[in-house]
Amino acid sequence: MQIAVLLFDRLTALDAVGPYDVLSHLPGAYVVFVGERAGPVRTEVGSLALTADHTLSEVGRPDVVVVPGGPGQRDHMGDGPVSRWLRAVDRTSTWTTSVCTGSLLLAAAGLLTGRRATTHWLAHDQLAPLGAVPVAERVVTDGKYMTAAGVSAGIDMAFTLAGRIAGAAVAQAIQLAHEYAPRPPYRAGSPQDAPPEVLAAVQARKQFILTRR
Amino acid sequence: MQIAVLLFDRLTALDAVGPYDVLSHLPGAYVVFVGERAGPVRTEVGSLALTADHTLSEVGRPDVVVVPGGPGQRDHMGDGPVSRWLRAVDRTSTWTTSVCTGSLLLAAAGLLTGRRATTHWLAHDQLAPLGAVPVAERVVTDGKYMTAAGVSAGIDMAFTLAGRIAGAAVAQAIQLAHEYAPRPPYRAGSPQDAPPEVLAAVQARKQFILTRR
Repeated sequence: MQIAVLLFDRLTALDAVGPYDVLSHLPGAYVVFVGERAGPVRTEVGSLALTADHTLSEVGRPDVVVVPGGPGQRDHMGDGPVSRWLRAVDRTSTWTTSVCTGSLLLAAAGLLTGRRATTHWLAHDQLAPLGAVPVAERVVTDGKYMTAAGVSAGIDMAFTLAGRIAGAAVAQAIQLAHEYAPRPPYRAGSPQDAPPEVLAAVQARKQFILTRR
Repeated sequence: MQIAVLLFDRLTALDAVGPYDVLSHLPGAYVVFVGERAGPVRTEVGSLALTADHTLSEVGRPDVVVVPGGPGQRDHMGDGPVSRWLRAVDRTSTWTTSVCTGSLLLAAAGLLTGRRATTHWLAHDQLAPLGAVPVAERVVTDGKYMTAAGVSAGIDMAFTLAGRIAGAAVAQAIQLAHEYAPRPPYRAGSPQDAPPEVLAAVQARKQFILTRR
C-alpha cells in the first residue's frame, strides 16, 4: 500500500507530518513524499524543510493520497501540475484525503463536486464556491474522500483512516504507541470553545493566517 | 527568542514537528533545526527527511531547547557531541524541554538529576536509573525543565510552554489557528485507556517500538 503525501512550498508542516507519523505505521504501508521538484520543500514559517523524495510524475498510482494545507496552497489552485496530478492519481486511489486547506486543492481540481467536505474553520466559506458541500465537522468522510479541519485535525483523520484501512485494533495500537490521549492545557481550539477576545483576535488576522502575506 | 530543535537520525518526526508548528508562531520567536551535520536527517520510518540547517557548533545559546525522541535516541546516550551540546546550551537556556524519549537524552547528559520528568510510557522505567524522578503525567515541569510523554504529548507541552512564555491569550490564539480541539476516534491513547488486548499487543512489541530493531 503506497501512501503519497503531497509537498509544496509553504505548506503547514504538521498537516503533512501528523498523518505521516500515524499512517506510516500501518502494516504493509509505505509513505512517499512527492513534490513538483524533488528535494527540500520549505514549510510555512520557513525554518523547516521536508524532503520530497519523488516528483509528481514518479508517483502515478498511490493507494492513498494525502494533501496538506497551508499558505502555499493558494499557489496551486489553478490548472497546473499539482491539480493535474491530483486528478490523475484520484482515478485509481483507494482514498483521497486532505488536511486543513488541502481540501480547497481537491475541490479546485474538481474532486469534491457535490461531496461533503471540511477545511480550516477560517476557510470554510471557500468550499461552496468550489462545488463542495461544507460540513462543520472535524473529520468528514464522503465515499473515498476524507477531509479534515485545520492543522491538528489531520491526526484525528489519520486515526480514522487507519481504522477504516486496517481495523480498530491496529489503529488503537498505533494510538497507544503514539500516546495519543490529548490534554490541551487550554480550551480554545475551535471558534465555539475559544474565549471571545481570542476568537476576535484570530479572525482579525484571518488573511495573514491563511496566506502569511 | 531562538528556539533550537535537535535532529538526529531515526528521530520520531512528530516529536519535533508538533512543538515546532506551535512554538514557531510565538511573537518574536524563530526556530532553528540543528544536527551533528547540516542537511537532511531521516526520521524513524525512513521515508521522511527533515533538514538540519545548522550544526551543533553553530547554535551555542538558544533560549529554548527542544529534544525529540525516537528510536535513534539510543545512539546518543553516551558522552558524545549531542550530550556535550545539551550540557553546553543548558547553561544559558531559559527552557530545556523534551518530547517522548528525548528526556532520556537530557537525563543521560545529567540535566534531570533529582528532577521530576516524564517520557514515553514504554520507557518510563528508564528514567530513574538515569537519576530523574519519573512522574506519570503528560507534561511535567520542574524549574526550567519541561518534559512530555510519548510523541503526541509534545503538542500539549508546546501549548503549555507557549502559555508560560507568552501568556494564555497568545497560546490560545495559536491553538485556535491550529484548530487544536482534538477528538480521537478511539479511546486508546494511554495504558489506562487502551483495551487490554491492544495494551498487551503493544507491550509485546516494546523493544521494536522503542528501537525499530
